[in-house]
Amino acid sequence: MSDTLLLPVLKILEDQDLDAIAFVPGANFRRLFNADFHLMERPLVVIIPRDAEPVAVVPNLELLSFRSIGFPGPVFDWRDEDGYQDAFAKAAQALPMLENAERFGLEAQRMRVFEHMALSEVFPAARFVDAHNALSQMRLMKTDKEIEQLRKAIKISEIAFEKTLSSVKVGQTETEIEAILLRNLFESGADGLAFDPIVAAADNSAKPHAHARADYRIKPGDSLLFDFGARWNGYNADITRTVFVERVSDRDRAFYETVLAANAAGKAATRAGQTADQVDDEVQKVLEASEFSAFRRHKTGHGLGLDVHEAPHIMRGNPARLEAGMVFTIEPGLYREGECGVRIEDDVLVTSGGCDCLTNLPTALRVVG
Amino acid sequence: MSDTLLLPVLKILEDQDLDAIAFVPGANFRRLFNADFHLMERPLVVIIPRDAEPVAVVPNLELLSFRSIGFPGPVFDWRDEDGYQDAFAKAAQALPMLENAERFGLEAQRMRVFEHMALSEVFPAARFVDAHNALSQMRLMKTDKEIEQLRKAIKISEIAFEKTLSSVKVGQTETEIEAILLRNLFESGADGLAFDPIVAAADNSAKPHAHARADYRIKPGDSLLFDFGARWNGYNADITRTVFVERVSDRDRAFYETVLAANAAGKAATRAGQTADQVDDEVQKVLEASEFSAFRRHKTGHGLGLDVHEAPHIMRGNPARLEAGMVFTIEPGLYREGECGVRIEDDVLVTSGGCDCLTNLPTALRVVG
Repeated sequence: MSDTLLLPVLKILEDQDLDAIAFVPGANFRRLFNADFHLMERPLVVIIPRDAEPVAVVPNLELLSFRSIGFPGPVFDWRDEDGYQDAFAKAAQALPMLENAERFGLEAQRMRVFEHMALSEVFPAARFVDAHNALSQMRLMKTDKEIEQLRKAIKISEIAFEKTLSSVKVGQTETEIEAILLRNLFESGADGLAFDPIVAAADNSAKPHAHARADYRIKPGDSLLFDFGARWNGYNADITRTVFVERVSDRDRAFYETVLAANAAGKAATRAGQTADQVDDEVQKVLEASEFSAFRRHKTGHGLGLDVHEAPHIMRGNPARLEAGMVFTIEPGLYREGECGVRIEDDVLVTSGGCDCLTNLPTALRVVG
Repeated sequence: MSDTLLLPVLKILEDQDLDAIAFVPGANFRRLFNADFHLMERPLVVIIPRDAEPVAVVPNLELLSFRSIGFPGPVFDWRDEDGYQDAFAKAAQALPMLENAERFGLEAQRMRVFEHMALSEVFPAARFVDAHNALSQMRLMKTDKEIEQLRKAIKISEIAFEKTLSSVKVGQTETEIEAILLRNLFESGADGLAFDPIVAAADNSAKPHAHARADYRIKPGDSLLFDFGARWNGYNADITRTVFVERVSDRDRAFYETVLAANAAGKAATRAGQTADQVDDEVQKVLEASEFSAFRRHKTGHGLGLDVHEAPHIMRGNPARLEAGMVFTIEPGLYREGECGVRIEDDVLVTSGGCDCLTNLPTALRVVG
C-alpha cells in the first residue's frame, strides 16, 4: 500500500474536522487496503490520525496476512494467551496527539461495542463520534471495475433465479425452493451470498424480511417472493421478484401492477442531479395514490456495493444529490398482512442522463408452476 | 413467547447484578426468542430490565415478523422516513428505573457502536457494561436438539468435503477448488455457510485466515488446507483438514504428525471437570515439545453453536470448567511462513467421561490428486 491510498481518509478527516478514524475489517477496510480480514472475537483495529502515521492492532495469527497489505505504520500484535488490551495500550502510546481528541471517528455501523470499549480504555479522555456517514462517501462512486463486478454478481443471480423458477411446482415448501435457489446461486458462479435469501409465499410474503417455512406448501394463487443476491469477489447483487403460482386474482394483479408502476417511477426519476428524497418521493407518490396506500412499509432503496446496504439511502428526507457512478436499489413493496406481499427490486447505476438498470430480469407479472 | 423464556436472562441479571441487558438480533436473540432478524442499518433492540417488563424498538417493516414472537412488553416501532431516535426515546420513557442504571449490560461483541450511541443518547446517565461473557453462559450447554442440529451441519460438511477432495487435481487454482467446495456444501444440504471457507495451498496455508488465490495453481508436494462449515437451521459446523497434493516431503510429514498429535492430545484431555486452560495446555505442550514450537500461532479452539466462535474459548488462562453438553473445536495448527501451514480441526461434545468427536472425517495424513 502506498501512502496515497490513505488520501481518501485524510480528505474525510479534514472535511469533517476529525482527529482520527478507527477502522475494523469490513467494506471500508477492503476498499482502503484491498484486503479482507475476519470480523471476529479477536479485534483488529486500524487507527488513521490526521497528523501522524497510522497504527494497527492485529491478532498475531493474522500478522502474516496483514503484512502483505504493506501497512505504513507501527503494528502491535497480540496473542490469544495474552489478550488484546496491552496492544491497544501500545497503540495509544504511539498516538499521544489523540489523548484529548475531541472528534475521534468510529465506523459506528460496523465496529462493535467491545472494540469501542477497548479504545475508550486507552483513550479515556477522547470523545468518540459516529463517522459512518462521512466514511460512506468513500465508496459512493463506483469505479468501472466495481461496476463490472456488480454486473457479474447480478448476472450470476439472474441465471440462478431463472433456473430456480423453472422448477417451481405447486406443493413445494418455501424451504425446498430456497434450497434449490441456493444450489443454483453457487452453480452459477457465486463465491458467496450477499445475504440469506428470502423465499416467502402468500401471507409470509407480507413480512418484508420473512424466513422460509418448512411446513407451508405453495398452492395455486399464492404470491411467491424471492429476495436474493450472489456475492462475487466481495460485490453484492440484491434483487427481488414476486411471481404468482399458477394463477393470480384480479386484486393481486392490481396490487402487483401498483408496485411495478412505483418501480418504473423510481427508475424514471433517477438521474444525476436529482436527490435521493426526490426519487423516493416519486415512488411513494405512486403507492400513496393507489388504493393500497395503507400497505406501504419502507423506503425505496439503498446503495449497493461491497456492502449490501450502504449509501445512498433512497428515502424522503435524504437531501443527497445523485451523481453518475452511484449504484442503488429501487425496491418498492406493498404488504397486505395475512394475505400477500409484493416487492420488485432492481439495481440501478446512475448516469448523467438517467439510469442504467443493471438487473435484466423481466418485471412484468409472471405466473409460474 | 411465555415469560418463562426470559428466565435465563433474569438469572444472569441477578447473578451479575445488572440493571438490564440490551439485545440485538443474533445468536442470543435467537436462543431467547426462537426467531431471527436481520442485523442491518435499521436498529432492532430489545431491553430486558431486572425489575420491569421488557421493551422493544423495532423497525416498522419488521413489525409483522416481530409480533409473531409474542413479545411480552411494549414495542415502539419506527419508520424509515422518521428515523429511530424517537422510538428509543419512548423506550427510555417506559423504563424510568434505568435512568441512572449503574450496570446496563450490552452484547458488546454483537451490538454495534451506533446502537450503543442511540441508547446512550436516551439514557445519558446510565453506565453501560460488557455483558458478553455473562450472556455466553446462556448458550454454553447444548440441548439434545441443538446437538442433533450440529451433527447434521457437520455431516453435510463432511459429505461436501469428501466429494470436493475426490475432484482435486494438480493445476487447479485455490479459487476453483473453493468454488467446487461451495457448490458441494449446498448440494449436500447446507442452508447457509458457517463462514466463508478457506482453501489455501503451500505458502498461503501458512496464513491462518488466508483467502483463496485465483492465480496460484496447486502442484505436487503442496499442502492444501480446507477450513469450512455448513450452516444448518442456524447451527454451524467448523472443520479443518490439511491434505497434501500427490506427495509429501519428510519434513511436511513430521510437521503434520506434530499437529495431529496435538489434536489427539486435545481430545484425550477433554472431559467434564477439566478446565479450558488444561485442555489448551495439553495441546500446546505437544507443539512446544516438538521441533516446530516456533510456528505456533493460536489457541486450541472455541465453542460452536449458533455462533461459529462462542464460549468456551479453549485457551491457557481460561479457568472455565468443562461440563457435559458443551461443544467446541480442537484445532491446533502450525504455520511455517512462506512454506506450509497445517491445521486439523475437530468439533467435540464434552461428556462426563471424555468427549464425543462429532466430526468423523479421517485425521490421518492424506495424499490426494
